Amino acid sequence: MPETRKPLLRALGGEAVWPPPMWLMRQAGRYLPEYRAVRAGVPDFIALCTTPELAAEVTLQPIRRYGFDASILFSDILILPWALGHGLEFKEGEGPVLPRLRDAASLAALDPKRVPDKVAPVMETVRRVRAGLAAEGFGQTTLIGFAGAPFTVACYMVEGGGSRDFAATRAMAYADPALFGGLMDTLTEATIGYLSAQAEAGAEALMLFDSWAGVLSPSLFRRYVIAPATRIVAELRRRHPDVPVIGFPRLAGLMVGEYAATGVQAIGMDTSMDLRRAVGLVPDGVALQGNLDPMALVAGGAALTEETAAILREMKGRPFVFNLGHGIVPQTPTDHVAALVEQVRAAS
Amino acid sequence: MPETRKPLLRALGGEAVWPPPMWLMRQAGRYLPEYRAVRAGVPDFIALCTTPELAAEVTLQPIRRYGFDASILFSDILILPWALGHGLEFKEGEGPVLPRLRDAASLAALDPKRVPDKVAPVMETVRRVRAGLAAEGFGQTTLIGFAGAPFTVACYMVEGGGSRDFAATRAMAYADPALFGGLMDTLTEATIGYLSAQAEAGAEALMLFDSWAGVLSPSLFRRYVIAPATRIVAELRRRHPDVPVIGFPRLAGLMVGEYAATGVQAIGMDTSMDLRRAVGLVPDGVALQGNLDPMALVAGGAALTEETAAILREMKGRPFVFNLGHGIVPQTPTDHVAALVEQVRAAS
Repeated sequence: MPETRKPLLRALGGEAVWPPPMWLMRQAGRYLPEYRAVRAGVPDFIALCTTPELAAEVTLQPIRRYGFDASILFSDILILPWALGHGLEFKEGEGPVLPRLRDAASLAALDPKRVPDKVAPVMETVRRVRAGLAAEGFGQTTLIGFAGAPFTVACYMVEGGGSRDFAATRAMAYADPALFGGLMDTLTEATIGYLSAQAEAGAEALMLFDSWAGVLSPSLFRRYVIAPATRIVAELRRRHPDVPVIGFPRLAGLMVGEYAATGVQAIGMDTSMDLRRAVGLVPDGVALQGNLDPMALVAGGAALTEETAAILREMKGRPFVFNLGHGIVPQTPTDHVAALVEQVRAAS
Repeated sequence: MPETRKPLLRALGGEAVWPPPMWLMRQAGRYLPEYRAVRAGVPDFIALCTTPELAAEVTLQPIRRYGFDASILFSDILILPWALGHGLEFKEGEGPVLPRLRDAASLAALDPKRVPDKVAPVMETVRRVRAGLAAEGFGQTTLIGFAGAPFTVACYMVEGGGSRDFAATRAMAYADPALFGGLMDTLTEATIGYLSAQAEAGAEALMLFDSWAGVLSPSLFRRYVIAPATRIVAELRRRHPDVPVIGFPRLAGLMVGEYAATGVQAIGMDTSMDLRRAVGLVPDGVALQGNLDPMALVAGGAALTEETAAILREMKGRPFVFNLGHGIVPQTPTDHVAALVEQVRAAS
């Protein structure tokens, strides 16, 4: 009975659901006053991610307000390296700060056996969100679990935080392929376990965020984006054949067609991607997800209406999930989000 | 007598010169001890750009050391807004700092009539480099002039400096198209005058750097990258039909084919571009330039040899200029550059 399945799962299954299912990356976040109220009451960001009651609450907030087709686990891509024993701090206004992984000893210190205990609260959050969605009448909303892709997580671990171009990471990838490859292998296997546990706890779809894939040359992209994603997707599909995987290789550009061969059920399109051209490079059965510019949502008005209409026009008749091309930003007016939801829901 | 023309100009003219002509973006720069020695003697970076004797000297330094096929004018893309009357400072370790252009009054304050006097030293540098190349026996080296493309220059003017995603610029482009479009028009016309003056002073090719083109959605890319480049190239080709133009729309990704319609003679490929796929999207007569990862040059050894060999393999038989995919970085060992030159010169 496919028509009774949730709209997001139908689209990820290759069906051209219309109007398209929609959600927004980072939809549980600082643009929502109810999120800021919860956040104000916790000592730090990691505490929010690892306190199931609070993480489940903020996961549900945007669903209550906008009725999105997906809720995405409230967490952070750096929770996995943190669970592996790598340090992590979030400094106000600075983003994440981590020790810099630059040698074999730091790699050897990562301990995959610690992960299940450390991420137990995340799994409890997943269970609570599933229960909450059912209890609050959001029977059509799909719960998405997620992890950072190994390359993007490695970027933060090697640089010790964010960076404009992740130069130290690329330098290590070229100069010490044994060390960098070892880090990638450790992260790849840990990511499989982490996402698999989320599926077991109740996540109905999984997303792999490779935010910095676009800084790589084609040869490194194949080795450190496509190969690990292929391994992760194959293993997840073997263990959880009913749980689709969304890959998000941000700024993949011309590599998007090759990325489709990872076996993902959907590919997230960043804002720069021309959807018509992307369609020509990705097999018909693979759903696309994206890609409104978050700054068009900040601007609102004619710019928002026109950019949204252009996306809907390109994607009609194809498996598609409406989303942003990058995370929603804190200064986004909530009434602009409401206007966007109204426009997408009215797509004809 | 095409065989007597300089190799770079032959490649930009659509000829598959082999081994390919080569130069490196930011080849006159801090990785060279002789550059650091000159830089140490001037009060600030703007003074270096506007003192013809010194700017010409550092332009010639990498040619003396490596015999590149192109010398590129030593200057900065922010010299043009500075000449228009917009403030500019380079702070040590911080990059450029500018006033933030956020209203019509700041736009109206830009004064194109000031530009010729302010950029007179740049034109004197061009003349000195041409004379220097001839005097020092570099008769096969082509002098490239350049400017920032209007969108990238506007990014720095609106943000007041560098940024990871130029969010304020994109927000203005969506929310106030009259103001942002006015800024783009002013910069487009000023860029034509500035590049045209460089050609008159002796620049034999011109390059348009759109370093931040990749942050735009496809619709804004068409409006603020492709349209101004088309206007600039058309006017430059009308005035200087023998001076080819190289466009560098960094991170253009899937838009690279549309960018070719601007009329440029060559397109710079950033590191992320898969050259085989790019070839399929760009007309045969348009040269490609790029795209070794600057971090592979830092790493040296097998990584450098393999990445370089892959580029040469893809580009053989096609009009091509070997270059990096982004500027050379200060920590690059000079002997790695020497090894790269040797490998490219030996391409068979």
